[in-house]
Amino acid sequence: MSSTERQGVRQAPGVPSDPASLAPEAARRLFAEGLTVPTSGWCAGYAQANIIAVPRGLAFETLLFAQRNPKPCPILDVLDAGEVRGGVLGGADPGSHADIRTDVPLYRVYERGELVAEVADARGHWRDDLVTFLVGCSFTFEHPLLEAGVPVRHLTAGRNVPMYVTSRQCRPAGQLSGPLVVSMRGVPSALVADAVRVTSRYPAVHGAPVHVGDPGALGIGDLAAPDFGDPPVLEPGDVPVFWACGVTPQAMVMESRPEIAITHAPGHMLITDARDSAYAVP
Amino acid sequence: MSSTERQGVRQAPGVPSDPASLAPEAARRLFAEGLTVPTSGWCAGYAQANIIAVPRGLAFETLLFAQRNPKPCPILDVLDAGEVRGGVLGGADPGSHADIRTDVPLYRVYERGELVAEVADARGHWRDDLVTFLVGCSFTFEHPLLEAGVPVRHLTAGRNVPMYVTSRQCRPAGQLSGPLVVSMRGVPSALVADAVRVTSRYPAVHGAPVHVGDPGALGIGDLAAPDFGDPPVLEPGDVPVFWACGVTPQAMVMESRPEIAITHAPGHMLITDARDSAYAVP
Repeated sequence: MSSTERQGVRQAPGVPSDPASLAPEAARRLFAEGLTVPTSGWCAGYAQANIIAVPRGLAFETLLFAQRNPKPCPILDVLDAGEVRGGVLGGADPGSHADIRTDVPLYRVYERGELVAEVADARGHWRDDLVTFLVGCSFTFEHPLLEAGVPVRHLTAGRNVPMYVTSRQCRPAGQLSGPLVVSMRGVPSALVADAVRVTSRYPAVHGAPVHVGDPGALGIGDLAAPDFGDPPVLEPGDVPVFWACGVTPQAMVMESRPEIAITHAPGHMLITDARDSAYAVP
Repeated sequence: MSSTERQGVRQAPGVPSDPASLAPEAARRLFAEGLTVPTSGWCAGYAQANIIAVPRGLAFETLLFAQRNPKPCPILDVLDAGEVRGGVLGGADPGSHADIRTDVPLYRVYERGELVAEVADARGHWRDDLVTFLVGCSFTFEHPLLEAGVPVRHLTAGRNVPMYVTSRQCRPAGQLSGPLVVSMRGVPSALVADAVRVTSRYPAVHGAPVHVGDPGALGIGDLAAPDFGDPPVLEPGDVPVFWACGVTPQAMVMESRPEIAITHAPGHMLITDARDSAYAVP
């Protein structure tokens, strides 16, 4: 990379040999320089976040929507209009180069609820009146699940987690409404209680499951056809377990059709400076 | 009471013989009819809340202040402008008579940070553009403390809990700033770990202590002279343990001087329809 920088050539950096061991600031620098990859497994021990940026005029209703739907929309931090870093994004380091407009590997831009662009650098679409919400991500509890002996099948298979739009509506806030989106993990029936127990310790990153066992009760017709992510890995004896998902704000954007909203692309998360362990209770 | 109603006489009802066994709706009705008492011990098992209502134009910054300071300002619910009930205040019951403007025993009205009135019925000061925040209250974890064998000395003594303005500033949000306010309970040194363990299970109602043992570290010069509530009860061998306090939003109002803010009077809380147990994790 340093030779690239010296030559002034704008070439995206390659994937480092051990992304799990990178510090968040170093990883974000790679993404700012153009690397566009999913972040699962990057920067072990650091919390990753969904993001959604909306105009200041919608900020209260967006924060209210999150507060009223804390399982799918647990807010880790908020960057007010004009702020590009702060709090869990470089807030503790006065010399931080963090920038919410460049440090996510891949962004999605929605206008009136329609996806109009997918970009590695959001500065061309950013506005000074955008307020950015950082929303907890279930990646945080996948490592504790593994440590407790609960297999996380999509990780082992090298796939993205399957996500589904449910028939359950979130509690609306003003003009904002939308369905609950869930992620699904197949869990051996003998370990379902352990999966509940472990994830309930992480309320700030979706917490305990919202449903165990019956996809139909959530209006999910075909488990094999998720709305986002990859098809599920289910082994004999697995029970489908559903957790609230940070893609819910994107479903809200699609239904509520705000003038503009900028989000991460699913799986391409913001890597924060907060430790996963900071979100464990008690 | 029914005879009072029949006669059309506006006379405040008396304190019922067993306020702990009342349902929240029944208790709120008494307060709406003019009963003005502290609510400690009322409606056992139901969560009580601090309240703060601010104009819609300040609602985002107030919610952001709460989000950035979740230990003193854990939001249980928000009533948007024009809503007088909803969510944990009668939201599950279409026939509910709950009304945020009358159902708190005693209100405080602040104009530009100055306390200008203390009233049992806030309708004369209410505005249709006020947004009301319901903030968790440490009453919720006092019963679990007692059950775990940790004495709660101010309860036994029939006093209000002592509260102190600290030298620690909250993380600001826009034009809103203010100091952290804490409540203090004296805990026998052998039981401090239990007090931490039990209260950490209730992150939505202030959670684990913010400090154990040294009032000076919080800028508290004289434990015997609290800023709010009653002087403390400390027995030999007690360690002063400090929890973040829901009076913090009132200290923020005093420092930030918004045009108008309406709060409860300390100790005179809103009794919600939410169960205390709903806030226990995991």
